[in-house]
Amino acid sequence: MSAGTSEPASPRSADPELREDRLLGGRVRLLQPLSGYRAATDPVLLAAAVPATPGQSVLELGIGAGAATLCLAARVGGLSLAGLEIEPLYLGLAARNAALNGVEISLVEGDIAAPPPELRARSFDHVILNPPYHPSASPPSPVAVRDRAHREGGAGIDDWIGAALARARPRGRIALIHRAERLPEILAALTDRAGAIEVLPLAAREGRDAKRVIVRARKGVRTPSRLLAPLVLHEGQAHLADQDDFTRRARAILRDARPIDFEETSR
Amino acid sequence: MSAGTSEPASPRSADPELREDRLLGGRVRLLQPLSGYRAATDPVLLAAAVPATPGQSVLELGIGAGAATLCLAARVGGLSLAGLEIEPLYLGLAARNAALNGVEISLVEGDIAAPPPELRARSFDHVILNPPYHPSASPPSPVAVRDRAHREGGAGIDDWIGAALARARPRGRIALIHRAERLPEILAALTDRAGAIEVLPLAAREGRDAKRVIVRARKGVRTPSRLLAPLVLHEGQAHLADQDDFTRRARAILRDARPIDFEETSR
Repeated sequence: MSAGTSEPASPRSADPELREDRLLGGRVRLLQPLSGYRAATDPVLLAAAVPATPGQSVLELGIGAGAATLCLAARVGGLSLAGLEIEPLYLGLAARNAALNGVEISLVEGDIAAPPPELRARSFDHVILNPPYHPSASPPSPVAVRDRAHREGGAGIDDWIGAALARARPRGRIALIHRAERLPEILAALTDRAGAIEVLPLAAREGRDAKRVIVRARKGVRTPSRLLAPLVLHEGQAHLADQDDFTRRARAILRDARPIDFEETSR
Repeated sequence: MSAGTSEPASPRSADPELREDRLLGGRVRLLQPLSGYRAATDPVLLAAAVPATPGQSVLELGIGAGAATLCLAARVGGLSLAGLEIEPLYLGLAARNAALNGVEISLVEGDIAAPPPELRARSFDHVILNPPYHPSASPPSPVAVRDRAHREGGAGIDDWIGAALARARPRGRIALIHRAERLPEILAALTDRAGAIEVLPLAAREGRDAKRVIVRARKGVRTPSRLLAPLVLHEGQAHLADQDDFTRRARAILRDARPIDFEETSR
């Protein structure tokens, strides 16, 4: 679920620091820095969890190079898309990637803790986010700039979720993906501020701890929370070198651009 | 996971309002009210999640008729056991059940929100709790007294968890079972007050939402949280009338008095 599990890379682009990855079975082309953080399955899974329908508006907080928003656009047409990003390097990449995929995204530079007025004036049907996985207290990586985009800086999970709820319309939806060990903080930030909280554990293999969670919620509703059965990503109990061992359900989502089914059914 | 799934009943005891159930494959005899709330699998599962070792002290908040504490005592010998209960009817039953099973439990009548001084003077290696499942706002049942023991009254989840942490020794452990839809409140109450939070989803069947969660935590530690793979209780996708369809793992816990394995292993 980290860098390295993305699909086979295309040849390097002209810029020596970038390479082009393909997501969603080739539906999305994504220029990303060659080293440092690279989007892999997490934004693809996040996008698959967003129940957006044509005509709706979607904001991604911390859009990075645009992976999640572009995956969502590849599955659902006719969305009004926006993205906020603090890091100019990534904002530039998101613009290039939007053009590369023929998708229009209204990109805004700014801090989630203090979004620019043009964004504060709007509210969205969906706000999605893949907040930094490493608290600002953890040691900085040598790859400082790229890395900064995936550290929390001044903003903690509570700030990210607060910003998401602030930009969602009444009864609007938020969806995020994060490390499962942060679930207590995520749910603490949502309690009393949102309802219809749905927790989807993501486990690498059957029987293992979830390492990621997708959490969805709705602003201003009182629908009870749900804890779903895990989405298991890989078959078997150990990775066989270089073999694609995705479960059928994971493959449908990651390769065939199927949405994640949140209905309570057998698998 | 509610009343009705307990094991086949023995004939009624002399008291017409009580009946004797057997838990843990007959290891625990439990007098309970014939109607109203009756312990079934939940306290058995809770007890199986407590990593107590001989010589340690265990307090159950809201001990009811004693099911969880007696199941724990049946699996682990040499524990120093205590129970707090607000409802005299249940406190009396807990005393009878302790005697019936030859187990010594120090029983204290009182409110978890304001425990009596004799309890406030003590701290415990383990505090366990199976708090009321229904918020006080929900409509009262006609079976008022029995029912009261399973409503929150003035105390909410936050109060229950606060009381548990208050009575745990430094680095002591708490374990609780509750409805999965209350997970956000449970984790909100634990965040910043405890570490090593472990969430075990309990699902009736494979692929279904978890309807219960067991949550464990340790006071005053900073160990990261875990979201475990679900414990699935029943085989297959539908209940076959009157057939014992427990999974092998559930049967080992509920019938053979095995502890729940919280290690990360394949099943």
